[in-house]
Amino acid sequence: MNILITGGTGFIGKQIAIKILELGTISFDGQAAQKIDKVILFDAFAGEELPQDPKIQVITGDITDKSLVEKITENIDVVWHLAAVVSSAAEADFDLGMNVNLYGLLTLLEALRKHGSKPRVIFASGCAVFGGELPDVVTDQTVVTPKSSYGMQKAIGELLVSDYSRKGFIDGRVLRLPTIVVRPGKPNKAASTFFSSIIREPLKGESAICPVQADTPVFITSPRRCVESMIQAATLSPNQLADNRIIPLPGLTVTVQQMLDALEKVAGKSAVDLVQWQEDKTIQRIVQSWPVQVKAEYAESLGFKADENFESIIQAHIEDTQK
Amino acid sequence: MNILITGGTGFIGKQIAIKILELGTISFDGQAAQKIDKVILFDAFAGEELPQDPKIQVITGDITDKSLVEKITENIDVVWHLAAVVSSAAEADFDLGMNVNLYGLLTLLEALRKHGSKPRVIFASGCAVFGGELPDVVTDQTVVTPKSSYGMQKAIGELLVSDYSRKGFIDGRVLRLPTIVVRPGKPNKAASTFFSSIIREPLKGESAICPVQADTPVFITSPRRCVESMIQAATLSPNQLADNRIIPLPGLTVTVQQMLDALEKVAGKSAVDLVQWQEDKTIQRIVQSWPVQVKAEYAESLGFKADENFESIIQAHIEDTQK
Repeated sequence: MNILITGGTGFIGKQIAIKILELGTISFDGQAAQKIDKVILFDAFAGEELPQDPKIQVITGDITDKSLVEKITENIDVVWHLAAVVSSAAEADFDLGMNVNLYGLLTLLEALRKHGSKPRVIFASGCAVFGGELPDVVTDQTVVTPKSSYGMQKAIGELLVSDYSRKGFIDGRVLRLPTIVVRPGKPNKAASTFFSSIIREPLKGESAICPVQADTPVFITSPRRCVESMIQAATLSPNQLADNRIIPLPGLTVTVQQMLDALEKVAGKSAVDLVQWQEDKTIQRIVQSWPVQVKAEYAESLGFKADENFESIIQAHIEDTQK
Repeated sequence: MNILITGGTGFIGKQIAIKILELGTISFDGQAAQKIDKVILFDAFAGEELPQDPKIQVITGDITDKSLVEKITENIDVVWHLAAVVSSAAEADFDLGMNVNLYGLLTLLEALRKHGSKPRVIFASGCAVFGGELPDVVTDQTVVTPKSSYGMQKAIGELLVSDYSRKGFIDGRVLRLPTIVVRPGKPNKAASTFFSSIIREPLKGESAICPVQADTPVFITSPRRCVESMIQAATLSPNQLADNRIIPLPGLTVTVQQMLDALEKVAGKSAVDLVQWQEDKTIQRIVQSWPVQVKAEYAESLGFKADENFESIIQAHIEDTQK
């Protein structure tokens, strides 16, 4: 079985690669497990600290390069499409966001359609498809109302993956992800990046800035749970999905204060004291426009689960970064 | 004031042109009325029975032809974007539907963005953005779930027009239209085309086939009401629209039987007898997947109205075709 991960040198891409190579096989729909022969990590950037495995092939290039994308999608059985320009960057540079998030996806879908092998495609969407006035509890039936270009591009991606699946060009699955916390590595250009920084940096003895009020809630998933969900999405039978390919994932709702309380339990008051409070009204406004309470009935019926508590997320982060 | 109507040689395009030239001016947001200087009818087809007026300029071409679209959008103040490959055709030829309905819209939006004059853009969407399991009453908050490529392309168009408006590239307004009945002229490739045929043909003394059961309901707007709504959408102030550019229109819900009862009142039993019943399960299934009861609160708050009854729609059709 051959795997393609776009955005593959990013941290979730690398984790999926490591995890499926640890597993060694993938089993579709309860059928016989199939050996993994090759994992292509495709990305615009070469990346750092890439997993070392002879089955891994790193290819850098442009996701809108039609002939290149046709080449890397040859004989591929599963695609995780994670390549994306993140929210703030897509808002600051509209063309860049459109190129990667919309035209890149279209290039990928057309290449897969041309090959005709109907691979499983797992597309990473997110809660940025929502914005503005939201109901107290967001459900599978909540209408998407993106208020950012990134959210618009993800919402379009959901529609494209659904219709390409309905037409039988691919066998797609859209995961609508909560905010991922604690992300390892460095801050990125997502408005949500500080949710990771305020845990990650203090654990290293470094200070971090929190731009929102302590009672600000956020709907999250851990990197480990995200990777598990990503792999689970590939193993689901198309029969389980019927005609609904969009799976809003469950997650954990915590306030910044609850996150810091958990940090104190794990790493002591000195860690929490490294968090500096500098309110940024723009970030506060963006964060408040996201769903906080999400009822993910469809995903739960398919077996997807939320993290149990924030303390265990911190513990897992410590384990993973000490590897 | 310069006007561009794409799909301009189609029947709604021609009617908008006739109506605004009759009016002679357009008044934005209650401000001073502005004289109409030029109306470009742009279409892939030359069309027939075009309105004769020195202000009208007919241009045929491809909506994805970037340099041509940049040329026809120069100094344009209002665009009605009606150009589309209809439902059955977009389902039968996926590439054709994607080219016109998605890439054509993108070409238009990018040309308008490049010119930088932020024209008003009225985009014709439709109830095909819905499909599958629907609530009994579809509202402004009902999640879109297209089950056709046409519906997917229209749903994407809604998102694009909304975000291009939010970014200030255009001043867009999306009208989500009910099925238009009675369409003049010949049947087209839309699954809904028979709803017009079963009225239009008998009025000419010709037979028509009804492929669905008599108790099948449909949610409709008349051509006249559609054209009025299209023009009204152009005159709304952006302040009235705030951050919601998607306007699901109100309409009239009637069954096929009620339509034929109205036909009998207007044209007698001999007209109704010209309708032949030949059930087509595919069409029945498609039609039943559309919304029937729609609560259009947002549109009504903006002053949009449904037709009053089906008899008056038939009367208007007779008047309009005898002109």
